[in-house]
Formats: sequence, structure tokens, C-alpha cells
Amino acid sequence: MRIAIDAVGGDNAPDEIIAGVLESIEQLDKDDELILVGPEDLIESQLKSRKCPKGAVTIVHAPDIIGMADVPIETLRKKPKSSIAVLAKLAKRGQTDAVISAGNTGACVAAFQMRMRNLPGVNRPGIAVVFPTPEGPVVICDVGANIACKPINLYQYALMSIVYSRRMLGIENPRIGIMSIGSEDAKGNEIVKKAREMIKADPNMNFVGNIEGRDIFEGTCEVVICEGFVGNVILKLTEGLVDGLFKAIKQELMEEKLRLVMKFKPVMKRIYTKYDYNTYGGAPLLGLNGTALICHGSSKSRTIKNAILASKKLYTEKINDKIVECLSETCVRTPDE
Amino acid sequence: MRIAIDAVGGDNAPDEIIAGVLESIEQLDKDDELILVGPEDLIESQLKSRKCPKGAVTIVHAPDIIGMADVPIETLRKKPKSSIAVLAKLAKRGQTDAVISAGNTGACVAAFQMRMRNLPGVNRPGIAVVFPTPEGPVVICDVGANIACKPINLYQYALMSIVYSRRMLGIENPRIGIMSIGSEDAKGNEIVKKAREMIKADPNMNFVGNIEGRDIFEGTCEVVICEGFVGNVILKLTEGLVDGLFKAIKQELMEEKLRLVMKFKPVMKRIYTKYDYNTYGGAPLLGLNGTALICHGSSKSRTIKNAILASKKLYTEKINDKIVECLSETCVRTPDE
Repeated sequence: MRIAIDAVGGDNAPDEIIAGVLESIEQLDKDDELILVGPEDLIESQLKSRKCPKGAVTIVHAPDIIGMADVPIETLRKKPKSSIAVLAKLAKRGQTDAVISAGNTGACVAAFQMRMRNLPGVNRPGIAVVFPTPEGPVVICDVGANIACKPINLYQYALMSIVYSRRMLGIENPRIGIMSIGSEDAKGNEIVKKAREMIKADPNMNFVGNIEGRDIFEGTCEVVICEGFVGNVILKLTEGLVDGLFKAIKQELMEEKLRLVMKFKPVMKRIYTKYDYNTYGGAPLLGLNGTALICHGSSKSRTIKNAILASKKLYTEKINDKIVECLSETCVRTPDE
Repeated sequence: MRIAIDAVGGDNAPDEIIAGVLESIEQLDKDDELILVGPEDLIESQLKSRKCPKGAVTIVHAPDIIGMADVPIETLRKKPKSSIAVLAKLAKRGQTDAVISAGNTGACVAAFQMRMRNLPGVNRPGIAVVFPTPEGPVVICDVGANIACKPINLYQYALMSIVYSRRMLGIENPRIGIMSIGSEDAKGNEIVKKAREMIKADPNMNFVGNIEGRDIFEGTCEVVICEGFVGNVILKLTEGLVDGLFKAIKQELMEEKLRLVMKFKPVMKRIYTKYDYNTYGGAPLLGLNGTALICHGSSKSRTIKNAILASKKLYTEKINDKIVECLSETCVRTPDE
């Protein structure tokens, strides 16, 4: 299998990206191919200094870099030789089986969608992240690929997330919840209400109905579907809140006794490890005709390594074939957008 | 001033509600009047057992109770003598200056809006909650009054929240952020983009532009405006996440050493006290032609007491007059819905 990685995407590129790629090698098969995409000189000097075994990694030159704050579509147009644009082209031409980037999410979504297109029957791809919770992993889809969400998109997110959590997380019959503002059926906006009817009409879905923000952490369901705007707010709020709370605890402990901070440190570390989303590597763009993983901007080498391993599993488990199969079998109509 | 309180709203009613009302008495003025609304017998027996001073509280009989899970409008129609419906009628008839309930939020919003109507110039009221953060209090509006949000609503939430945070929290020139999915101007859905233009066009607003979920806790701004759906998810996610995280910490500490749990307990307690939203009593329904506070379903006596004191401040500070004044002076058009 061929896996192409954006060498210059993310806050810690290229160091952590290259390190992650090299770390992954020993867990891959001999005939797997790793392709680093980015400025050739930069990648070469990085590989040299890290004593990369010869032939272990191929380089595809992409001189331009899209910044994390750049406006996606505008920048893609201006920088056709950016690493993200080149990644997408490699996938389109069948020169790679998977693409991975920790760069500008908007640019990734736009480029990958434009070049790789959707799977047959899929109206809009959605980004699926895994939230590690005390009750087990919870898949949340979409967290920002699509901010003009329609009911059919939400229905398809549910269907794709079931396939994903079954094959990738080993959850055989995941319960589906739809994010709303109250657990009763009458609650929610028009999109939520219509999507709920579609999901209810599908006997293959283990649907628990509306859920609320707090339910994500309480073991109410294993799959949460929501509009990309709402999902993105959830993702970033959770990150900010966890960091803020740990900071507050540390402050309080320091006021108490410095010794207590030291004692609390391993506990915090264990919690970080237990609920570390980096374990899952990156978030797949489900519904794309290809395998694409988008990693957090702050990704470290471990995240990148895990993303490479996840892309291999997504590919070998034939997640996409299974999604197409499920979509073709569903009784719920999927009108053209 | 006359303040009417729903005696039977919330998970801890009537005990905590009545207790909170009685606790508030000593902090009110002699000519303030407290009105308890609910089943007469129930309230009377509660007051008797608590040795309420004679004449301190008036009772208005409302035999019916709306449950926390009841469908708002349907139930209001079926139960015209419910405590929430009677509260709204008292306000409409000018028989009270403020209404407070910890009951069914949807029913409160529907009843209060229907009977009390909007302030001149306000298109839709919004619920404003105060989030206590390490960087100080942050007002978030709307958290669920309106789930069919238009750009003008978001603009007005900003304007009303400025008045609220200035008069109630003493923040003279609050910075306004609009909740979106990226800090750059190009990010966001159509409603956010249009609202942003309106706010930008108002020279009186200290506008920081788009913010993301994590910014709430990082001191980026003092006012966050968002659609009611998004705000409601933020509110409930935050509650659930804080509870879940503390539970996880406790679990980890117990695995470590039981003695450590005991040491950590006062720290957790201090954090709870420091970041306790109950301090703010309840969330006002800003934009209503009257004073209405909606309290959390889990409100304890302290929350109710604080809500009573907050309603008095909202009233005496003439928040509503100030909102009308600001709306009439703004250069941003407010089209009829």
C-alpha cells in the first residue's frame, strides 16, 4: 500500500511529521510505500539528519506551503504546487492509496473533495473524530467538512460512522445519537427533525434519538451525528475546556501545596494518556472516494505514526466498499443535492 | 419591587425553591414583595414547616405542574393553570415586576415570550448565561431561546449582552466574539458571515471577530454570541465535560491512593466554588418586555436566592430601558422578521 504524507502541514512540521513517518516504518509491511510530499531540499536534509534507511521513503516535490490560517479555496488556487494540492493530485491520479495531512483542515477538505470526489451515493463527506470518554470511544461526525448541512447528510454520516466504528473500533452494533437541544423528539431544528425521521425509517440503525452535549461523555451512544458547524464547536470547546480545567487545577494545587502538584502530576498524565485522541491518529474524511486522514494541527510524531497505521487499516478493511454497499442497500432515499 | 417565583419548577422543587426564597428575604428591601406561584396547599405547608415570617411571602395558586420533559407549547395549551403559565400571566397583567423559574426552559421561553412580548425593536429574545472562566466571566447569548436564528438576531444579542455585562458584571467595554469554526473572517456559515458584517458596521461594538470553542476559556472576549442551537450544545457539553473530567480524576486518584482523594477534595471544592455558575443565579431572557430569569433545572436554594437578587438588579439597573435606547440609536437596520 502507498501512503502519502504532507511533510509541511501542522504546527510541528516538518520535524514531528518526519519523525512520525520514520517511527511508523517498523510497524508497516515490507511492500508498503511511504511518500513524503513537500519541498524536496527540506525533506532530504531532514531525512539525512535522522539517518533514514535508504529507499524507505519516496519524496514528491511540492515547493509551496499553505499556512494554517490561509483562506482554503483562494490559497489552493494561488498555490497549485502546495503540498496539500499535490497530495490531492497524487490521489486523483492513482499514485497513492491514502493521503494524510496535519495542515490547514479547510484546504485539505476542499482539495481532497475536489480531486478525489465522493463515493457513489454519498452526497457530502464528513470528518469523523473519535472522542475517548470514560465510557469508551465515541465517534462524532461531522466536525467541520460541511457547514451547509442537509438532513440527508446527517443520515449518511450515521451510516458511514457505523461502518467506521464497526470496522475500526470493533463496536459491532453502535448506538446512534443525533445532537440536539433536548432529548425529547420535539426538540431540535428542522434539519435535525428531518434527519431523525430518516434514521428512524432505517431498521438497520440502533438509534437512541436526540442527545445533548453532556451525553457524549455519559455512555449514551457510540456514534454522535451533527452539523459540521456544531461538531467543530464541540471539538474545539472540548479541547479548550480540558486544557483550561487542568490549568485551573494546577493553579489551585500550587496555592495549596507545591508537593501536591507533584503528586497530582502522574494522575494528570495518566488521564491524558487514557483520554488521548492522538491514539486514533487522525480523522478520516468519510465518504470520499479514497482514503484521507486529517490530523490535528498540533500533531506530534506519535499522532502521525498512528495516522499512518489507521490509514492502512481503513484501506485494508475496505471501509469504502462497505459504505457503498450499505448505501446501496438502504431503504432511505438519497436525493441529489 | 414584586418578584414572582415558580415554586414547583426544577428537579429540586419545591424544597430548594422555597428555601431559596426565604434565604433571599434578609437581602431584600422592606417594600420588596415575593410571590410564590404553585399549588397553594403545597406552598403553605412548606412555608409553615420552615417558619416563614407572616406576610413575607404571597402565594398565587397554580394547581398544575409542567414536567421537565414535557413538550412546551403543547403542554402550555393543555395546562393553562400551570405555574409557568400563571407566572407569565402575572407579568402580562402587571401584577409582578419579575418572574423566575427553574422549570421546563422551553415552556418558560414560550410562555414568557407569548405573554410579555418583546421590547420595542427586538426581533427575538435570547437567553444569556454567564460562564465563569479562569479569565473572568463570559456572557454567552443565545443558549436556546431561538433555534431559527437570523443575522439580525445575532447582532441584537451582541447589543443586549453588552448592556447586560456592563450593568450586571461591571465590564465597561466588553469585547464581542462571534462563535464560528475558525478565527479567520472567511470562516463560518452564512448567518455568521452576515451577522459579522452588521456588527462590524456598528462603531460602538468592541468586536474581536470570529472565535472558536476553545476561546471561551482563554480570555479572548467577554461576550460570545451564537445561534441558540449552538449555544445550547456549548452549555450542556461544558457541564457534562466538567463533571466527567472530575469523575475521571477521582477514579484515577482512587486507584493511586485513597489518601490522595481526600487531599484533592478541597481543591476540587474550591474550583467548583470559583467557577460556579450558580453565583449568577439564573439566565435572563434578554429582549423581553419585562424581567424574566430562567434557572438551571438542578438549582439549589442558593441559585434561587441569587436569581432573586439578580432580578432585582436587572430591574433597578433598568437594563431594558438601556437596551431600547441602544437599539434606537444603532445605525444597523433591524428589519422586521
